[in-house]
Amino acid sequence: MKLTLGMIGGGPDSFIGAVHRKAASLDGRFDLVCGAFSSNPEKSNATGAELGLDPSRVYGSYVDMLNTETGLDAVAIVTPNHLHAHPAIMALERGIHVIIDKPLAFSLQEAYEIRDAVRRSGLVLAITHTYAGYPMVKEARFRVSRGDIGTIRKVFVEYPQGWLTGFLEDAGNKQASWRTDPSKSGAGGSVGDIGTHAAHLAEFVTGSHITHINAMLNTVVPGRKLDDDASALLKFSNGATGVLVATQVAAGEENNLKLRVYGEKGGFEWSHTDPNTLLYKPLDAPVQILRTGTGYVSDAAKNGTRLPAGHPEGYIEAFANIYVEFGRAIDGHISDVPLDAPFAPDFPTVDDGVRGMAFIDAMIRSSTSEQKWTEVTL
Amino acid sequence: MKLTLGMIGGGPDSFIGAVHRKAASLDGRFDLVCGAFSSNPEKSNATGAELGLDPSRVYGSYVDMLNTETGLDAVAIVTPNHLHAHPAIMALERGIHVIIDKPLAFSLQEAYEIRDAVRRSGLVLAITHTYAGYPMVKEARFRVSRGDIGTIRKVFVEYPQGWLTGFLEDAGNKQASWRTDPSKSGAGGSVGDIGTHAAHLAEFVTGSHITHINAMLNTVVPGRKLDDDASALLKFSNGATGVLVATQVAAGEENNLKLRVYGEKGGFEWSHTDPNTLLYKPLDAPVQILRTGTGYVSDAAKNGTRLPAGHPEGYIEAFANIYVEFGRAIDGHISDVPLDAPFAPDFPTVDDGVRGMAFIDAMIRSSTSEQKWTEVTL
Amino acid sequence: MKLTLGMIGGGPDSFIGAVHRKAASLDGRFDLVCGAFSSNPEKSNATGAELGLDPSRVYGSYVDMLNTETGLDAVAIVTPNHLHAHPAIMALERGIHVIIDKPLAFSLQEAYEIRDAVRRSGLVLAITHTYAGYPMVKEARFRVSRGDIGTIRKVFVEYPQGWLTGFLEDAGNKQASWRTDPSKSGAGGSVGDIGTHAAHLAEFVTGSHITHINAMLNTVVPGRKLDDDASALLKFSNGATGVLVATQVAAGEENNLKLRVYGEKGGFEWSHTDPNTLLYKPLDAPVQILRTGTGYVSDAAKNGTRLPAGHPEGYIEAFANIYVEFGRAIDGHISDVPLDAPFAPDFPTVDDGVRGMAFIDAMIRSSTSEQKWTEVTL
Amino acid sequence: MKLTLGMIGGGPDSFIGAVHRKAASLDGRFDLVCGAFSSNPEKSNATGAELGLDPSRVYGSYVDMLNTETGLDAVAIVTPNHLHAHPAIMALERGIHVIIDKPLAFSLQEAYEIRDAVRRSGLVLAITHTYAGYPMVKEARFRVSRGDIGTIRKVFVEYPQGWLTGFLEDAGNKQASWRTDPSKSGAGGSVGDIGTHAAHLAEFVTGSHITHINAMLNTVVPGRKLDDDASALLKFSNGATGVLVATQVAAGEENNLKLRVYGEKGGFEWSHTDPNTLLYKPLDAPVQILRTGTGYVSDAAKNGTRLPAGHPEGYIEAFANIYVEFGRAIDGHISDVPLDAPFAPDFPTVDDGVRGMAFIDAMIRSSTSEQKWTEVTL
Repeated sequence: MKLTLGMIGGGPDSFIGAVHRKAASLDGRFDLVCGAFSSNPEKSNATGAELGLDPSRVYGSYVDMLNTETGLDAVAIVTPNHLHAHPAIMALERGIHVIIDKPLAFSLQEAYEIRDAVRRSGLVLAITHTYAGYPMVKEARFRVSRGDIGTIRKVFVEYPQGWLTGFLEDAGNKQASWRTDPSKSGAGGSVGDIGTHAAHLAEFVTGSHITHINAMLNTVVPGRKLDDDASALLKFSNGATGVLVATQVAAGEENNLKLRVYGEKGGFEWSHTDPNTLLYKPLDAPVQILRTGTGYVSDAAKNGTRLPAGHPEGYIEAFANIYVEFGRAIDGHISDVPLDAPFAPDFPTVDDGVRGMAFIDAMIRSSTSEQKWTEVTL
Repeated sequence: MKLTLGMIGGGPDSFIGAVHRKAASLDGRFDLVCGAFSSNPEKSNATGAELGLDPSRVYGSYVDMLNTETGLDAVAIVTPNHLHAHPAIMALERGIHVIIDKPLAFSLQEAYEIRDAVRRSGLVLAITHTYAGYPMVKEARFRVSRGDIGTIRKVFVEYPQGWLTGFLEDAGNKQASWRTDPSKSGAGGSVGDIGTHAAHLAEFVTGSHITHINAMLNTVVPGRKLDDDASALLKFSNGATGVLVATQVAAGEENNLKLRVYGEKGGFEWSHTDPNTLLYKPLDAPVQILRTGTGYVSDAAKNGTRLPAGHPEGYIEAFANIYVEFGRAIDGHISDVPLDAPFAPDFPTVDDGVRGMAFIDAMIRSSTSEQKWTEVTL
Repeated sequence: MKLTLGMIGGGPDSFIGAVHRKAASLDGRFDLVCGAFSSNPEKSNATGAELGLDPSRVYGSYVDMLNTETGLDAVAIVTPNHLHAHPAIMALERGIHVIIDKPLAFSLQEAYEIRDAVRRSGLVLAITHTYAGYPMVKEARFRVSRGDIGTIRKVFVEYPQGWLTGFLEDAGNKQASWRTDPSKSGAGGSVGDIGTHAAHLAEFVTGSHITHINAMLNTVVPGRKLDDDASALLKFSNGATGVLVATQVAAGEENNLKLRVYGEKGGFEWSHTDPNTLLYKPLDAPVQILRTGTGYVSDAAKNGTRLPAGHPEGYIEAFANIYVEFGRAIDGHISDVPLDAPFAPDFPTVDDGVRGMAFIDAMIRSSTSEQKWTEVTL
Repeated sequence: MKLTLGMIGGGPDSFIGAVHRKAASLDGRFDLVCGAFSSNPEKSNATGAELGLDPSRVYGSYVDMLNTETGLDAVAIVTPNHLHAHPAIMALERGIHVIIDKPLAFSLQEAYEIRDAVRRSGLVLAITHTYAGYPMVKEARFRVSRGDIGTIRKVFVEYPQGWLTGFLEDAGNKQASWRTDPSKSGAGGSVGDIGTHAAHLAEFVTGSHITHINAMLNTVVPGRKLDDDASALLKFSNGATGVLVATQVAAGEENNLKLRVYGEKGGFEWSHTDPNTLLYKPLDAPVQILRTGTGYVSDAAKNGTRLPAGHPEGYIEAFANIYVEFGRAIDGHISDVPLDAPFAPDFPTVDDGVRGMAFIDAMIRSSTSEQKWTEVTL
């Protein structure tokens, strides 16, 4: 049965709001039935009208929406970071499951508060670390966990973007404006916007946690208020070490998240520029090109793929996979019966979100410290 | 406003039915409201239930559906080829717009009949030559038509697949069974299934038509009833020549449609394995990597893209672009006012479908002729 | 021990002469000791001086050179095609082994005469079909012959270049001038210059021969005297079919020879743009990236590689591999004892050269015939 | 005129000795006339015989060779690092130019001594940082220096290898044995063997120097005596920052040196896996694929290329480019007249070698320091 969904944020200039809507609708699990798309009622109404929503269910305030709507299954929170915690907690307190964009919150403290609310409510919260929704990322995690490459020794994760190479804050670019504004983004710039994705991907695939960070954060573009470039040496809980790069001033780069992990017996490489491929590099044997939609991949990958091999699936599909798993978790919650799939629902949780905020916190602390290593504290 | 959609075909074992449904729903333009998913009522009901449709609007016969449903805006026909013409013509006669999978019909004769019905009805018929929905294919067409590479001289199009390398017909593979069965597919095997895609892509991008064909069709796998391998030398209406390959026995290949066109001043290359990229090869200058979601591509590409550069879009999105344009055409039809976009709706039409059937016909005639060149006749 | 080498052709404007010299010297098997680099004595002397040769061994006439030099082990013939047969036969008659550029001769008739001279002399003649010198081409041949992909069914070979997109004949481009001049090149343009390479590669890897050709030759650029574009459907002696493309008007392409072969159990793909890689595509399993310098490749590939994996080798190295094998064959000839390597010397022979001329002949006959298939006759 | 060359090291099990010999001979500038290939006279003689050298000029001791040979133009030193300084200084003192493998010496102190000897002698010393010999690396340096991408802000250089993933020291692998033996390699393992290459490449292209290092060195494989994995955050003299990775335990990687630099207006990317290509990434415009052998590259690249576009050149050719430039410098030294080319000879010098040793020194000091940043001191 379809689940009903409300949305907070996602008005006219939003990028991620439209992504959430397409992802929610792709597989027919969610019906968007109401929204507070903007605190400006005109803008909210305009978006609601464009989406064909019942005007009476379009709000200029999420507080109004959450106080008015009853029986909503879930709400998607797609606002800037400073507007995450309050609506999330309010929704959970009203019995509504939450799916929320990353990073989880404005601060580590707020992240703790959201986590507490999730625990009190017993409800489901998913955080859209999109890349964990890609089938070949799931395949990499599965194969690492199965031991295909032995103990992980090295982890290299990088997320180069170039879109903030110039000073766009004054150019009327809404995305640039709020993401570089500490009053809306929080204390992290690139480290929060894309560094958290990179860190989550590394932890997701390896099954290990980043325990210590040796970071350099830079504000490369003069006049910018937050970091636009981050890099760090890493230590992981299993003894591996690694390097993380997240930069938004790599002119000419798009969105080129890449993960490479190496163990005693081989390596895996996944790149967002070719997301339906996973390179498997067994020691002393030919590299194998693993592909979505084939017969030889694991159920983890198969469950996240809609099409046979050779039919590219992309970002919206990966995003939709998180919605699908979020839906499965809600189903399980509603029906209180064991899920019929061999897998527990697989989506980034509030704990991943809290880890992301702790990562931002440790990156910033490390970057201002003369000491080499800074511990990630939860 | 959302348009209502019915579906004919697309039951439990269908591949393309699910693609149509996801494509139709992705951008929120269509609401699937009824379906005759199978001629087996149980199977049809099962699919309808899975999709959450009102059981009273799920049928075991498309005749019943078309006779019962009133006010339907459009119907998607996703049955095997031998079940294209009758439902298409019946829908058009009842005032329902049609979107239909390729090839258009079981035979060239049936294609003519569908075309006549479209003309009589004045309604919209779209045929899902998916690849024409990719933004970078639209970009290539735009740049060719603008004269960026001068007069086109050479066209190389290839569509290698490997999935029919073995004899799957007896293995309970429904896709293999009907696609190699002349009573369901018509006279063409690979030439109809994928050759028509290749031919359409070449004509779409170059703006020229294939006028003469020198073809070799093979049935490589013993026991198969239709061709599983086709290649041809081509002549185009603008004086260009070319080569077309469509094979389903290229073991290890997925769905690797590729087009290369060369003119007096440069070339373009587009490959389905990396669909968000278009290579532009100006003579005596560096090759340029053109990408979706960037600021420098044409409106034709921008209109077919949902996300910023670096966020891969894939097959479903390309398919959905055809649905979006189909919807725009219906809007124009309904409102009888000029469309507000700078572009006329851009989708493969019934004339493309007829051309595809004429292509199949000419390929088969050529392959059995001792004469070198066979004319494509419409 | 080093072998002594003379050169015929390869003067100031030559491209391939310098390649032969570097290839001959790379592995220290040959010492260039004399040359008739041009029929213009000044030009010949200039090249000789540049190379540091003894002036008394630099000639303005190959006849003089062959009549004067005694004890020469081998001669490299790198002149335009119309100057192949006479010096080759003369050298053989004087007991000198010959290495010669492709195509073998000006005409099929001349090719027969060279072959007769080789047979009469009992000496070694190698023809520099460079691509057969690449280690991963040797690997492909080895694996095909071992049966890794079963019986070959399909062969696709293409050689797109763009350098003749414009009319360069009048621009003082010496390469363009002689290669498009039927009095120097013979009856074939692109078909002789690069088509023969493509045909040889296909036959070399598959171990089958092209028996029938259905060709289209075009002179795309107005005013050109020979074909600059060729394509053909092919039948092979083992029952396989294929497609060959050789074009010099694919604007923006470099030298992108590519071979793909498919059998019952998989396929291989090799591309000159990434020559140290061979893609192995087993049916229903991940594609494998086979690489030079690794432990898992065959001795055939190992023998043609100088460096460990990850150290790119290129065109000169492939060319040098032919020289190395030519040298081994001369060694065997001189010493009249079994070669100590597990392999017989592996280089394209006069028979390959004759086949190349028969290929040109059949392509031209086919292109002017209304009949579909033309037999390759030797 | 050809220059005479002697060789020290490069006996039967050597990898780099053969590379030096092929590189020296490729372009016909150097004649190898004598050698002390091993301190084991039998091994030295075996190599000399294989190379066809006059037995009287093959030595079991480089001291003997340098004391005996007169009139030698140059000597190539290809021994393990602990045997660099003494023969280099001895040769320089005897008036012989030196080309030497990297890293320059066993220790920073020895590097200073070599540098002093170079200065005292006024002779030429070249160090074979091979990658600086690639034409597209030269192109990148040229374009950066011309200001194509503005001030450099970010530098990412990585050199992942996998060959030391296992413990090969006991397996009779000579390369593994000496490179992991601190008595032969010096204090650095991976950091000396490949880290110096990466550092040199970054400095060569950017024209800036690494001034501060924040490094992590690891000995990943149990029992190994030196680091096999290094990574560092970097500060450059022009204000840029960066990341360097050099690891030999990235299972499945070959020799994948890659450099990416980003400035205010664009970026460049060069990768050793595709060395004839340089990616130019102008801000807000399509990425351009720059290729060797084309008409649009700089003279710097043209001078390092032997073949037209589309003919791959590789590692030996890059290596040979250093020999060619070394030869040009010797020519200039001998003739004491201005060089006739528009370029000064372009090769890595003793100063680059000293910088490399200072880099190793700083990496090691940083890795054992609790302090974040360590200065590179010369």
